[in-house]
Amino acid sequence: MKVKMQIDIRKLIERGDFRTLKMLLEDQDANVVYELIEELQTSEKAIVFRLLQKDLAAEVFSKLEPDEQFDLVKMLTDDEIKSIIKNMDPADRADLFDELPADVVTRLLSFLPKSEREQTIEILNYPENSAGRLMSPYFVYVTKSMTVQQALEKVRKFGKDAETIYTIFVVEEDKTLIGTIRLEDLLFAEPDTVIEEIYTPEPIYVKTLTDQEEVAELMKRYDLNAIAVVDNDMRLVGIVTIDDIVDIIDEEATEDIHKMAGMSVTTTSYFHTSPLIFIKNRLPWLIGLLLLQSVSAYIISGFESVIAAVPILAAFMATMIDAGGNTGGQSSTLIIRSMSLGDIDLKDWWRVFLRELLVGTIMGVILGVVLFVRGFMISNSVLVNMSAALALTIIVIFSNVIGAMLPFIGKLFRIDPAVMSGPLITTIADLGGILIYFAIASSLLNLK
Amino acid sequence: MKVKMQIDIRKLIERGDFRTLKMLLEDQDANVVYELIEELQTSEKAIVFRLLQKDLAAEVFSKLEPDEQFDLVKMLTDDEIKSIIKNMDPADRADLFDELPADVVTRLLSFLPKSEREQTIEILNYPENSAGRLMSPYFVYVTKSMTVQQALEKVRKFGKDAETIYTIFVVEEDKTLIGTIRLEDLLFAEPDTVIEEIYTPEPIYVKTLTDQEEVAELMKRYDLNAIAVVDNDMRLVGIVTIDDIVDIIDEEATEDIHKMAGMSVTTTSYFHTSPLIFIKNRLPWLIGLLLLQSVSAYIISGFESVIAAVPILAAFMATMIDAGGNTGGQSSTLIIRSMSLGDIDLKDWWRVFLRELLVGTIMGVILGVVLFVRGFMISNSVLVNMSAALALTIIVIFSNVIGAMLPFIGKLFRIDPAVMSGPLITTIADLGGILIYFAIASSLLNLK
Repeated sequence: MKVKMQIDIRKLIERGDFRTLKMLLEDQDANVVYELIEELQTSEKAIVFRLLQKDLAAEVFSKLEPDEQFDLVKMLTDDEIKSIIKNMDPADRADLFDELPADVVTRLLSFLPKSEREQTIEILNYPENSAGRLMSPYFVYVTKSMTVQQALEKVRKFGKDAETIYTIFVVEEDKTLIGTIRLEDLLFAEPDTVIEEIYTPEPIYVKTLTDQEEVAELMKRYDLNAIAVVDNDMRLVGIVTIDDIVDIIDEEATEDIHKMAGMSVTTTSYFHTSPLIFIKNRLPWLIGLLLLQSVSAYIISGFESVIAAVPILAAFMATMIDAGGNTGGQSSTLIIRSMSLGDIDLKDWWRVFLRELLVGTIMGVILGVVLFVRGFMISNSVLVNMSAALALTIIVIFSNVIGAMLPFIGKLFRIDPAVMSGPLITTIADLGGILIYFAIASSLLNLK
Repeated sequence: MKVKMQIDIRKLIERGDFRTLKMLLEDQDANVVYELIEELQTSEKAIVFRLLQKDLAAEVFSKLEPDEQFDLVKMLTDDEIKSIIKNMDPADRADLFDELPADVVTRLLSFLPKSEREQTIEILNYPENSAGRLMSPYFVYVTKSMTVQQALEKVRKFGKDAETIYTIFVVEEDKTLIGTIRLEDLLFAEPDTVIEEIYTPEPIYVKTLTDQEEVAELMKRYDLNAIAVVDNDMRLVGIVTIDDIVDIIDEEATEDIHKMAGMSVTTTSYFHTSPLIFIKNRLPWLIGLLLLQSVSAYIISGFESVIAAVPILAAFMATMIDAGGNTGGQSSTLIIRSMSLGDIDLKDWWRVFLRELLVGTIMGVILGVVLFVRGFMISNSVLVNMSAALALTIIVIFSNVIGAMLPFIGKLFRIDPAVMSGPLITTIADLGGILIYFAIASSLLNLK
């Protein structure tokens, strides 16, 4: 059905049958419209936006990628943009403004009524990834002296514009947050019950500057549909709802995954990101690692005479490097992910160390035996194969422990543990591996 | 506050002051109790469970890790376990039974009333990670001929036991799903409005066998609080709510991350998983890669004479291997994550190929120049350094493209793209890298 309607839309635009198109788009869900226009040209998208109802246009616009939003802003008239941004969610609007060039932002801000302009500027002042940036100022609040009947009337009156009505916030007269009440509790209670008797005190809340990862953490832990955001005086200023959190969990996982692969984080989607951005996010890491790697090149060059005497040793070098990198990559990944999910803390380093020493030893011994047997494929020397096997065992133990400890070192120095993993552990395992390998080989083979 | 109460709990148990403890635990939130007992011994946990109200005990029990649940089952009396499992959520109960030994499951099943026993067995019959496993049978449904007033009465009557009342499902007399209605729409409507006039037809739904990842995908895309699960005749059999999805998004990201690091997936948390499980999940991969790697060892051994003639070439070998692995790791990670988030499809392979060819070429040339300069640290031969630089440029382009294409190959053959990345790309980049390097070096240096 999706594909069929998409063809229709293109055809209707080509035929100029905007009347039918407008009728078709009426009262559609924003997600459906978004999917319908996703693969249209910007000029075709602009036509669709002109036909959409104001609210819907703003909602669909919020869903577009930043580069598409910018392209559309350039194509639409001032009046059209004005109507869209006025109807946007304050948080989405702030996100849009954050991506646009400063001169465009100034122009767009001037389109907004004073109160919304101030609101937008305020949100823009909160740091990226903070609760303040994420929160919506639209929520339903009641005071504890109200009755259930009065509270429900308030829900009916203000609920349509609120981000959620499933959680209602209980405040003092000066808007100090004192608790929450769920919509169902209102529904299940007698109309003349006073809120004070049934609300949940000691609410879970975050401050405007709280990091979004922590907001997600709290909402997950307490299975919350919405969480209160308060200022320094505990006054309720906004709420964050679960649908925002779902996106953030994805975002945080992407951040970890990108960093683990040795890249700066790209949050925009693949095809909406210029290749130059990817190069900017990837190349510095590769250059850094290449330079760091010169240390092992230097070490190897010191063993030039050993290699010249027994060139077959070089054949095992790649094995040592790969096995160390793979093992260390596994253990660092395990620890980093467990840290992200809150299963492992800084104080656990000692237990992790012991466990990974054990795991590394068992795996190292088994892998050593496998390599010893495999060695005969390329070398008949028992001594060469034994050196390689012994070196591999030690390298696996070493890399496994280092891989597990690097994230702790990162955490200790307040560097994101994910950055400490991936390529960095590869390079370190590499360095240690080569040293261990040549040290063992030259002593067992009586070289040097 | 959390820490203080934890000390209290230990002290109270030691002093045997169960009366105070019981009082403290009364009406606490399940999450709070879970945090309080998290670090207690199993025997101490058992004491706490005996003091908790039935519902609360079941809820807290569901939150424990599988190994803790099993330990507790062994420690509690039959009557105590009976009361806990009877009060558990059906999906949580199925999860528990899935982890326990078969004989324990048989015994526990016999504790359940017939209807719940059948329900549990039915859930256990759905494959792991399917919507059937995840869904709850507790929801509120109405027919389209009801009035808003009647629907709200139904919500008040059955809502307390339902998983959610924010979404109400509209069905035919035979329970065929025909639509949904949000609680707020009921609240905002006049009491005598008929549901038919205000419900949303064409509901989003999944089948019982739909994979949980797809369920999460749909709920994210349409910002749903709850989604309907239907059988093959479109009859509504259960619902999945957003709080389950939050856990699944985490779980799916962990799966990707573990696979990318070349490990089978471990879903239990680090300290609740035996080191032997980790070895089982990690070692086969390391052995496989070690054996795969013998191909490159074999290739290198073929260049023995080249290495013997110019042993300094070995010093660059590690650089070639690492750079290829790092570059390919970056591109495969980017593509895999984008695939997981639904930004890239199989049909996009050609566009990705061109983009990554471009990105790889630019990065390869720059890295080649850096290596050429760096080369003089260990070798004065312009020719050696030039061979290395040229080889590196080609290796980076090669690995970048291969890394980006491997996930597509995986997807084409219905292998999880994440498995195709990480260590596999390292090993392939390795192999290609060594061939490219020695081919260029021996031809430029007129060796062999």
